[in-house]
This record gives sequence, C-alpha cells and structure tokens, in this order.
Amino acid sequence: MASKFFSERNLRFLLYEVFDAPSLTYYDYYKEYDGKTLDMVLKAAMELADGLLWPIFQEMDKHPPELVGDQIKVHPSVRKFMEESGEGGWIGDDIPFEWGGQQLPQIITMGCRFIFCAANYSASAYLGLTSGAARLILSFGKEEMKKTYLPKMLSGKWQGTMALTEPEAGSSLSDITTEAEPTEHDYYKIKGQKVFISAGDHDAVENVVHLMLAKIKGAPAGVKGISLFVVPKKRMDESGQLVSNDLVTSGIFHKLGYRGCPIVQLSIGDNDDCRGYLVGEPNQGLLHMFQMMNEARIGVGAGAAAIATAAYYAALDYSKKRLQGRKLSTKDPTLPQIPIIEHPDVKRMLLFQRSVVEGALALLTQCARCADLAIVLTGEEKEKNELLLDLLTPVAKSYPSEMGLLSISAGLQCLGGSGYCDDYPLEQYYRDARIHPIHEGTTGIHGLDLLGRKVMMRGGKAYKLYLEEVEGTIRRAEESEELRSHGQKLKQSLKRLQEVTAHLMEVGKKGNPELFLADATLYLEFFGIICVAWQWLVQGIAIMKALANNPEDAELNFYKGKFFAFRYFFEYELPKMEGLAKRLMNSDGLTVEIEPDLFSD
Amino acid sequence: MASKFFSERNLRFLLYEVFDAPSLTYYDYYKEYDGKTLDMVLKAAMELADGLLWPIFQEMDKHPPELVGDQIKVHPSVRKFMEESGEGGWIGDDIPFEWGGQQLPQIITMGCRFIFCAANYSASAYLGLTSGAARLILSFGKEEMKKTYLPKMLSGKWQGTMALTEPEAGSSLSDITTEAEPTEHDYYKIKGQKVFISAGDHDAVENVVHLMLAKIKGAPAGVKGISLFVVPKKRMDESGQLVSNDLVTSGIFHKLGYRGCPIVQLSIGDNDDCRGYLVGEPNQGLLHMFQMMNEARIGVGAGAAAIATAAYYAALDYSKKRLQGRKLSTKDPTLPQIPIIEHPDVKRMLLFQRSVVEGALALLTQCARCADLAIVLTGEEKEKNELLLDLLTPVAKSYPSEMGLLSISAGLQCLGGSGYCDDYPLEQYYRDARIHPIHEGTTGIHGLDLLGRKVMMRGGKAYKLYLEEVEGTIRRAEESEELRSHGQKLKQSLKRLQEVTAHLMEVGKKGNPELFLADATLYLEFFGIICVAWQWLVQGIAIMKALANNPEDAELNFYKGKFFAFRYFFEYELPKMEGLAKRLMNSDGLTVEIEPDLFSD
Repeated sequence: MASKFFSERNLRFLLYEVFDAPSLTYYDYYKEYDGKTLDMVLKAAMELADGLLWPIFQEMDKHPPELVGDQIKVHPSVRKFMEESGEGGWIGDDIPFEWGGQQLPQIITMGCRFIFCAANYSASAYLGLTSGAARLILSFGKEEMKKTYLPKMLSGKWQGTMALTEPEAGSSLSDITTEAEPTEHDYYKIKGQKVFISAGDHDAVENVVHLMLAKIKGAPAGVKGISLFVVPKKRMDESGQLVSNDLVTSGIFHKLGYRGCPIVQLSIGDNDDCRGYLVGEPNQGLLHMFQMMNEARIGVGAGAAAIATAAYYAALDYSKKRLQGRKLSTKDPTLPQIPIIEHPDVKRMLLFQRSVVEGALALLTQCARCADLAIVLTGEEKEKNELLLDLLTPVAKSYPSEMGLLSISAGLQCLGGSGYCDDYPLEQYYRDARIHPIHEGTTGIHGLDLLGRKVMMRGGKAYKLYLEEVEGTIRRAEESEELRSHGQKLKQSLKRLQEVTAHLMEVGKKGNPELFLADATLYLEFFGIICVAWQWLVQGIAIMKALANNPEDAELNFYKGKFFAFRYFFEYELPKMEGLAKRLMNSDGLTVEIEPDLFSD
Repeated sequence: MASKFFSERNLRFLLYEVFDAPSLTYYDYYKEYDGKTLDMVLKAAMELADGLLWPIFQEMDKHPPELVGDQIKVHPSVRKFMEESGEGGWIGDDIPFEWGGQQLPQIITMGCRFIFCAANYSASAYLGLTSGAARLILSFGKEEMKKTYLPKMLSGKWQGTMALTEPEAGSSLSDITTEAEPTEHDYYKIKGQKVFISAGDHDAVENVVHLMLAKIKGAPAGVKGISLFVVPKKRMDESGQLVSNDLVTSGIFHKLGYRGCPIVQLSIGDNDDCRGYLVGEPNQGLLHMFQMMNEARIGVGAGAAAIATAAYYAALDYSKKRLQGRKLSTKDPTLPQIPIIEHPDVKRMLLFQRSVVEGALALLTQCARCADLAIVLTGEEKEKNELLLDLLTPVAKSYPSEMGLLSISAGLQCLGGSGYCDDYPLEQYYRDARIHPIHEGTTGIHGLDLLGRKVMMRGGKAYKLYLEEVEGTIRRAEESEELRSHGQKLKQSLKRLQEVTAHLMEVGKKGNPELFLADATLYLEFFGIICVAWQWLVQGIAIMKALANNPEDAELNFYKGKFFAFRYFFEYELPKMEGLAKRLMNSDGLTVEIEPDLFSD
C-alpha cells in the first residue's frame, strides 16, 4: 500500500503561503501561538496520523463494530486513539484555554482534522463528534453542565454525538417525535427513538453523551418546538457513580463503507427512566444545534476532501510504478513498457483528482479563515466573515462530497482491475466517501439552503460580499501576465453566475417556490464550480508569487505541478458550468410538472 | 426489498414499438420464429429471472466464492442456474440450430440477458461467458473441437471463460507472455499466468474451458504473435475420462462488488503438462478474440444498464413509500408528511436515472438490431450495419458503464442514509456496477478505440453512415410538432460533433498522436451524450406514434412518463456536451505536456 496519504507540502502552501495562518496570532485571542508553535501542532497531528491512524485504516474496515447484547464493540485501537486524542489536546483543540482546550485557530484545527481524516476517516469521526458536542455544551450549556461533561469529553473518556435523526425524521427534522417531559427536578424525562447515530455507542469509552433534539411536551409543532438536551448513556447518581440512564442501543446499521465507526439505533426511555438536561433555551434547540451542524458540515467537506486526497496519492503511487503499454507515438512492441503515468489519459485522471482535491481544500481553508476572522475581528469585518462563512458552508460541504466521489472513482480507474480489489485501498475509499453527500444534510438539502436561503438572506448581502471577494481576486490576478486570461475566464463565469442568479430570483418572485427551487441542486453544483475556480485563482496568485522567487528542484516541481492543476481546473472543470447555466436559465418546470404516477412503469 | 427490477413495458416498447424485433423473422435465418414465439422466449427469461436469479441476488453477495485448496467453491444456486440455463437453451440462445442452439435474434437474446443481469448480475456472468466462449469455438474451432466442447458448454455442464489478462498485460495485451510450445500431437504445451479471469474456476460445473491468448514459441513480438487456444481445466484422456490438465487456480481476488462471481488467478503448466488446442489460425488470436470481446462489450453495456435499471426501480419504490417533508409551497408542520417522490429534486433524480437507463438500453437495442441485420442482409446493407455496430460498440459499452455509476449513485441518494445501508439493495448495485468501466477494456481504451480507430476507419465511412442515420431520425422528428424543437437541438449538437471531430482530425494530421488522443475519453463522453440523444429522439418518434392512438390509463401514463424522460434528456443531459465541446476544441496539450515528476508532491 502507498505510504503517503496527503501532501504536507500542499497543506503548508495553503496554510502559510495562501491564507497566512500565522497572521492570526497577531490577534489577542490567538496570541499564545506563533508560526513556530502552530507548526509544531501540525507536526504532532502528522505523527498521530502516521503512527496510530493510518496503520489501522484497512483493519478497522475489515473488522467493523458489532452489537453484542446491547453493547457495541469496536476495534481496540479506538480506545487508544481516544486516549491519545485526549492527552494530545486534539478533542479540545479549538476550545478556550479556560475550559482545558488548546484555543487554536480553526484554520489549524481544520488542517489537523484533514490529516486525521486522510489517514483514517472512520477513526477521526469519534474525535470530531466529541469535539463538536463539547463545543455545543460550551456555547449553550450551564456552568454546572460544562463542569460535568467537558473534562470527561476533552480527555477522550466520554464520547459525544449528534442525536437528531429519527425513523420518520431525517431531512425533515421538524417531524421529530422524541419527547421531553418536564419534572420537578433539573432534568426532563426523555422518550423516543433515534437512528443513524454515528459513534452512538461503543466500548472504547466510559460513557456516551448525546446532544439530542427532542420536543418538550406541549411545544409548538415543527422546528419551533425543538429543544436541545444532553442525554448521557450513563448518568451520575448521588454518590458520583455512573448508572444506566435507560438508553439502549437497539440496533446497528451495516454500511457500504465508513465501517470503522458504528452507526446505531437508540431506544430512549423505554422504562420511563431516561433523564435529559436542557441545553440553552427551550424551543431554541435547532438554532443551537446549527452551531454543531455548521461545524460538522465543514468537517464533512474536509473529510471528503481528505479521503479524495488519500485516494489521489494511492492512484499516483500506482501510476508511477505500474508498467503498461507504450507511448502512442512509438508502438514498437519490443520496447519496454512504460509507467502508466506517462499516458496522457492517466495524467488527465490524476490532474482531475488533484484539481478537485486541492481546489476543495483551498475552499475549506478559506472557510476556516473566515471562521477565525469572525472570532478575532469586530463590527463590519466580523459580520462580513460570518456572512461569507454562512454562504460558503453548503458549498464547502457539498463540492468536496460530490466531486470527491468522482475524484476517487477516477483514482480507482487509474488502477484498472486492481482498483476493484482490496489489495489496494481505492475500493475502500470509494465506499467510505459515499456517505458524504448524505450525512449532515444531503446535497439536495444544501441546494435548498444555498439558493433558497443563503443567497437571499439579509437582502442578498452575503452574496454581494462574495461577488466582491471574487472580483477582488480577479483584479489581483489581472496584474499577472500568466494569470490574466484565467482571471478573464473567471470574470465571464461570474457574470454567468449573476445572470443565472438574477433569472432564478425573478422566478422566485413569481411566488412558486417549487419552480424556483426545482434545480437548486444544480445551482449548488454550478455555484460550486465557479467558487472553486475562484479558489484556484487565489492559489494561482500565490503560485506566481512563489515562482518569482526562483525556487529550485522539488520546490520548483511543486509549483510547476500545481500550476498544471490550476490550468486543468480552468480548461477542463470550469467549462462544465456552461451546460449547467444553460439548464438553469430554462425554468420549464419539468420536474415540478411530472406527476408521481407517471413514473409507474 | 422492491420486487421490480426492470420494466417489462419499456423493454417491449423498445423491442416491438421502436425496433420492430418481429420483422427479423421475415428473414430466412430467423424464420422459425414469429412475434408470438419471440414473446414466449421473453416470458421464459422473466420467469427464470424472477424464480431463480432475483431471490439469490443479495445472498450471493453476502456469501462470495471461496478458494478452498485449489478449488473455488461458489454459491450452490450457481449449479442450478447453469443447469437450468442449459436446459432452457439460454447458453446457446444465439447459436445456430445445427449446433444445438436456439438461433434467436440478438435483439431478443440481448433483451433476455438484460433481464438476467437486472435480476442478478453476478449469476448472469457465468452464462454470458460460457455463451461467448462457445460462439468463439463455433466461429473458429475445428469440427472435432466443436463436437467436444459445444454440447457440454451449451448444456451448462462446462463453464467457458475469456483468459486474456496477465500480471504484466492488462490494457496492453500485446505484452502477454503465456507461451504455447508446439508438440508432435494436435496440442500445444501451455505455460504461463493469467489473472482477473471471471468465472475462471468453480465447483458448479464439471469443467472449465478457457479461451486463452498465448504466444506460440518464436512468434513475432506484439499483437501479431498472439494466438488463441482452448485450454480446459480438465482434458479428456484416451478412455474419455476427465483428467487434470495442469491448470491450477492459484488465487482469488476480493472485490468491491460483483461478488457472486469469482475472479481468479491461474497458474498454467507448472508441471509442463498443460495442453492447449489452437483455435483458428496461428498469430490471428487477437483478431479471433475480438469476436468474443465485441460481444462481451455490448454485454457489459447491457449489464451496466441492467444494474442501473434495477437501482432505478429500487429507488422509485422507496421514493413512493417514504414520507418525508412537505411541499415547499405549504410548510405547515401540522400537515402530514408527503411521499418524497413529490419533491421536485427527487423527481429530478428519478428522471435522471430513467433518462440514462432507457436511453442506454435503446442504444444497446439499436446495436443488437445492427448485429441482426448484419446477419440477415447482404452487400452494402450488411456492410452498413457491420460498420455502425463497430462504431457504436465503444459507446454502447462505455456510456452505460460510466453513466450507470452516476445513475445508481442518484438512486442511492434518493434513499438517503438507508441507501448507504444493506437493508436496501442500492449499496450493492453501487459496488457491483463499478466493474463496468474497467472490464472488457477500460473507458480510456474505448476512447482511443472510438477516436483513434472507429471514427477514421475506412476513410471515415462508419462515421459518415452514423451521421446519415442521425440526420434521418432528425428529419422524421421534424415532421412532428412536438418533436421539432428537440430535433433542432439534436441537429445543433450533431453540428457541434462534426466541428469537434473535424478539429481533432486536423490535430491528428499534424502527426502527434499523443496530442490527438489526449482527450479521447472526453470525446467518447461527448459522442455518447449526442448518441443517446439520438436514441431518445428515435424513441420520441415511437412515443408520438403511440400517443396518436389515444392510449388510456396505465398505457397513457407510460407514454406520458416516457415523454418526460425524453424531455429530461434533452433539457438536462444534452447540454452537458457544451462544456465538453469547449474543452475538446482546445487542444492545448496540457496533459501531454506535464512531466510525470511534476505530480511528485
């Protein structure tokens, strides 16, 4: 198996050369760090990934979790990883010092999670969920709750989860029926069913802490009646002992991939003895939950880009070593065979992967930078970064998820028959990554979010700020002779984006939301291509800056190779927006019009 | 699990209303049949699929073949299926009566195979391989060989295979090293290694007959030195007993999907006692093999379309039953939830699938009709159909294979989290279908075949005939008011095809084959979209004809639904050729230019 699963060089390029992560340490909140200490954090993440996560990547897939009685048994290495994650400060990496966290910039923690996910996506999910759940308690929990849960979670002794989905409520969260009945104590009695809960139970931790959505008895219908609770698997009795909280693991799902992490069904309060503790305000649960959901969406994007990166390096390794065929220009069969990486079609597949994964990672890094700036800045600048992050979140979740699948498939294709077999990791990447367009909101949901909400919110303010950002990048690119024509292409694409958006807004005004949003998923795809082209132009500027310093050898090759990936995106990927634009300008209502019974045969 | 895995109605539409299969029975070769008897054959295929194949579809995946000692053990139902296939005449369905076959038109046998593959792709592979191998022996084998092998193979007692690939020779068949040493007897001594041999060994048959490529000692290098041999696992000794032929199963591959059929490694002649029998002329092996390969390529296309069809019906079934969310126009959370098939985005995903699978199946049926006409016609008309089939084969293999993956992925997406779990068959379809862009020539190989060979062969004769065919369809469509605008769209697309092709031919003339063929895979994709649009227009004409007869109820719904799928293809799929054309017109040589070491980081 290939030993490289991500590019340290490219990650450094993004963190330091493109988005200048160390500049965040000039702000008060991140002042305990400097470039050197940030770098030590990255190095430590690589060591953990190399030493612990990567070696068990295939093994965890081959030995998936099992439900034994009502207890999920997971791979023994999960316990070790959770412990080391706790000791190394990875679970609380972006939690403030005062709560025992590392208070690191998100741009760095995103980079570290990307490394973990590239090494072993299933394993990193345990960490990411615990971290997100802890942050949610930190944001909205009472002081006492923070003191009870945060130390245990940050040390990796207790697992955190997001417990949202129910049998009849997946995409439609407003339909959850899990009920919370107030008591005269500080807790509610919880009763209901949850399904598809990632890391929802396992034996590598002492306890599992569910951040659970439920409805307080008598609450309004729909999303306005949803509240957020902490519902632990085991609660503490008066003597401080962990005792059962009437929350039973009633099933495990057998999945296509992502098999190292259990996805379970939970039966809650069957014996009327499950206690839940309100987090934040009653009926504000979904709003609170959105903090974790938005973080998780960026996390899914990063996970998708990470798996696709690992797939790229596996495909690259094979393509360099595998001898097959000869140059099309020299067909003499007595000549030795050449490495397949010399065939243009293989180079095309590799460039496709590189352009997708490095473009996606740039977008994710951009988002993390917005999140950091929203923390350290104030006033208009803070708001601007919040709005940009809001607007870009559905894109940063969906572009890597959807394009990651195609990228991994291209990687698998490089290996031919070997890609289809488990002697190589490609088939696992292909399975693992298929979860990403589904969890944390399907691509369809994100299409609705982008077109139906984000583009229009606050009178289109986020959208206008976005256009300004892209235009700013184009202006900077136009100063470079090598980038000018690409800047022009992006300018034309941005114009097309505005035409399409304006057209759809007109449709929207006519008062038929079905027609307005019918092709929202395609709008998301269209928006995403242009958005990633923007991120490639941002990278292109940094490439040119670096090349101006006359790098040599491996460094020169890095920038030259990256510039090919940049060109590839503009020449092969960006044109895909043409067909989408053509479709999006045609609001014929075809999919609105067709009646369900016409599918009948 | 959904009980429907294909549409009988749509298959009948294609066979009878679009391509008029019964008209073939007016020709001498098929005169034993008429519309009624052809229909009985279809009905019998459905019964076999329903009764035997479909019930074990998931079970064969869960209990894949195992290598025990040097014997592959497969699911016990395989033996039953091979026996019933033999008794039912399915293995020899298109073999002449005189050799014990059914002498059926290919358009019918393709339809039957499509049904089998939709019910259970892995199982149908055993049948398809035996059938293809038998036909190869029939075409090029000596009389004695036919007598020895055909009865055993056609009765399902002996398995047939294609034994081409070797560890160092996959896409580059010219590099095979398996050697055939002449003896003073009627056999050669064979020595070598073969890998990735489908159904290459198993315990559901008495013997396995490999149609194997090898090089006769001293033969010229490259493809000009390849010969074709029959190499049985067991040979008959002088007393007529089957004895070992020194051909050992040395390994089994663990695959992503398609798990019901073993893919094995063979060690041939380790003890210098493996006998192979020459088929056809020495050094003409690859040419002979192309008969089976071309048939297998259409078979792969049909298999890919079949799996995607089954996935579509599983997604459709779920989408009708699953309640989730409300109309975008009525968000009142107290209203009951609606079936997800009422959401435009779900209808879009379903229409995407339907437009892909029914478009692909039309193209495959078109190819089968060409194959039949090439048999029954003579002179120019025969040649025309041969040439069209030749030209369309890479498209008919690759379009269903590549688009089938996306179609199945859309089907899986309709189910959300359930699509990712093995309670539903989507995740298996997703795994099973990934083999198709790989086996029987990767998509890249077919791109080279189409652009580098087929479009140019015989001075572009096949390509010109193809253009004429499409133009003829456009003219017929223009007579219909409802189809006129779609005819116009196809006309414009065809013009674009000609521009792109002419541009590439110009590049080709400049003598740099690498540059000429760099984007051949994208040309194949581009060509495929337009080709399937043609097949939709062919179907559109038949739809209009049927609607003119005022069908009612379910029949009316069928044609109305089909017309939506027709419109979907033109409005959503055909525009994808825009971006491809833009790329193909830009022969900047990006992928030729980049040096392998620029991928290094």
